[in-house]
Amino acid sequence: MAAIRLAIVGVGKIARDQHLPAIAADPRFELAALVSRSDAHADGVPTFPTLDALLADGPPVDAVALCTPPQVRYDLAHQALRAGLHVFLEKPPGATVAEVAALQAEADAAGRTLFASWHSRFAAGVERAEAWLADKTITGVTITWREDVRVWHPGQHWIWQAGGLGVFDPGINALSIATQILPWQFFLTEAVLERPANCASPIAARITFRSGDGVPVEADFDFRQTGPQSWDIAVETEAGPLLLREGGAVLVLDGQESRAPDREYPGLYARFAELVEAGRSEADVRPLQLVADAFLRGEIRTVEEFHD
Amino acid sequence: MAAIRLAIVGVGKIARDQHLPAIAADPRFELAALVSRSDAHADGVPTFPTLDALLADGPPVDAVALCTPPQVRYDLAHQALRAGLHVFLEKPPGATVAEVAALQAEADAAGRTLFASWHSRFAAGVERAEAWLADKTITGVTITWREDVRVWHPGQHWIWQAGGLGVFDPGINALSIATQILPWQFFLTEAVLERPANCASPIAARITFRSGDGVPVEADFDFRQTGPQSWDIAVETEAGPLLLREGGAVLVLDGQESRAPDREYPGLYARFAELVEAGRSEADVRPLQLVADAFLRGEIRTVEEFHD
Repeated sequence: MAAIRLAIVGVGKIARDQHLPAIAADPRFELAALVSRSDAHADGVPTFPTLDALLADGPPVDAVALCTPPQVRYDLAHQALRAGLHVFLEKPPGATVAEVAALQAEADAAGRTLFASWHSRFAAGVERAEAWLADKTITGVTITWREDVRVWHPGQHWIWQAGGLGVFDPGINALSIATQILPWQFFLTEAVLERPANCASPIAARITFRSGDGVPVEADFDFRQTGPQSWDIAVETEAGPLLLREGGAVLVLDGQESRAPDREYPGLYARFAELVEAGRSEADVRPLQLVADAFLRGEIRTVEEFHD
Repeated sequence: MAAIRLAIVGVGKIARDQHLPAIAADPRFELAALVSRSDAHADGVPTFPTLDALLADGPPVDAVALCTPPQVRYDLAHQALRAGLHVFLEKPPGATVAEVAALQAEADAAGRTLFASWHSRFAAGVERAEAWLADKTITGVTITWREDVRVWHPGQHWIWQAGGLGVFDPGINALSIATQILPWQFFLTEAVLERPANCASPIAARITFRSGDGVPVEADFDFRQTGPQSWDIAVETEAGPLLLREGGAVLVLDGQESRAPDREYPGLYARFAELVEAGRSEADVRPLQLVADAFLRGEIRTVEEFHD
């Protein structure tokens, strides 16, 4: 297969830190162009101010990776699918669940790949956790996802706007892992969302989910964590505990800790290449669905203003 | 086929006004029991305080119609499916989208029918509207759903609690019609929800949806409408306008108004009987999905307190 000629749309922190290195290291991809309103550039690759400009005047491309904020992702994906391109959606795949369903229908009609990428599912410990849990009797799950927004999302104002998800922007990573490793579906029964008086999105959330049989899944999401940061999923089973730490990078099982180098974005691009080659899509909306349900069902409490 | 022996769980206003008469008039159903914490009764039919009590001590039943508030519907449906019963869910089918997906998986595993009933889809004008619109070029849709909550939901405190949906309780009826009659998917781009300072749910909402191709669908939901009430969907097409009025009961096409008697609940039960006989389920979550997206994406404005 010839390399997939790829354009990155939206060259912010995540594109520079993760996408560009992953693409450079994967021979199945060839970086063909950037689309950015800023002066982003990469060696030997042209930059266009808009996707329109790329499609009109740029080199041929087979696929786009959309790394813009979720609020504008639909139109770009729609336009790219129309132009016959495969589409890789940075997480979350859209600002609403229904728009992702609409994109899936469009991708199917166009015979193109739509990939809703959940990078945390490619964390080093996730695959083994899923395999180990498959036949276990689980009695409870605790998700603790507490980080300092000022460190990890400096100046990202879109995160505080309506549709920007607030603390669910990292929290949805935990949900993307939980929906992958737990052998049953779960849904929300109670949620309290804390929203700063000057923001549209929550800065913290405590959520109780459960399985159909009543196994509790408790989630604690907080953007105000200074000092040590927590990205942990603890699963209690009748065969002992399983712990995923550091966002899934570290697996602790039978008291043994295993850790492997970060391969999340390389893993995502490997999966995207497989999907394109197989002519298939993968756009699991469940993590976003659970977040939408939290907004639908949750009680909102106003807390003190947040200033970056 | 022998009559389906049915129990109604939750004997409130909607059960008395709609379910009991529809069941009495349909020979495919036999009312076998009521489940109610109050002193609800129907001629010659036993009443049980809980579904547990019915299952333990009651007459045999084949199906349940769940007419309780949505916040408690999942557990009842789960229990009923476990007991081998078919399940009819009053709208909305649950307090979250994910729990309805979980129920569908349980119904499939149990080989039982799950029916998420959207009564407005059985309003007299809906089927003809859907057929007429199928091949039209639509240029815009306006949904106006404005009613007086004090008239239509007196004392229904659950509607104001988290998960009770507020103005989306009637608004979701409009969305159940729109998702049925419009020949394409649509999704939300902007929403403003007005929430009384003393309530968890909105009293009004203005929402802009659109199709993939950008056709606007504007919705105006308001619970504070006194005087004339509006439950209208107006569709502009290149072949002229289509108007559904009075919640879908009246269809106006080519200047001709057609109206037929209300058969919504008889239609629902006829459909439920067909599904049970065919061994199939029908649990379209799209209307609830659009509401969850409105909470996810919408801007919330606090407005004056509401007192019933």
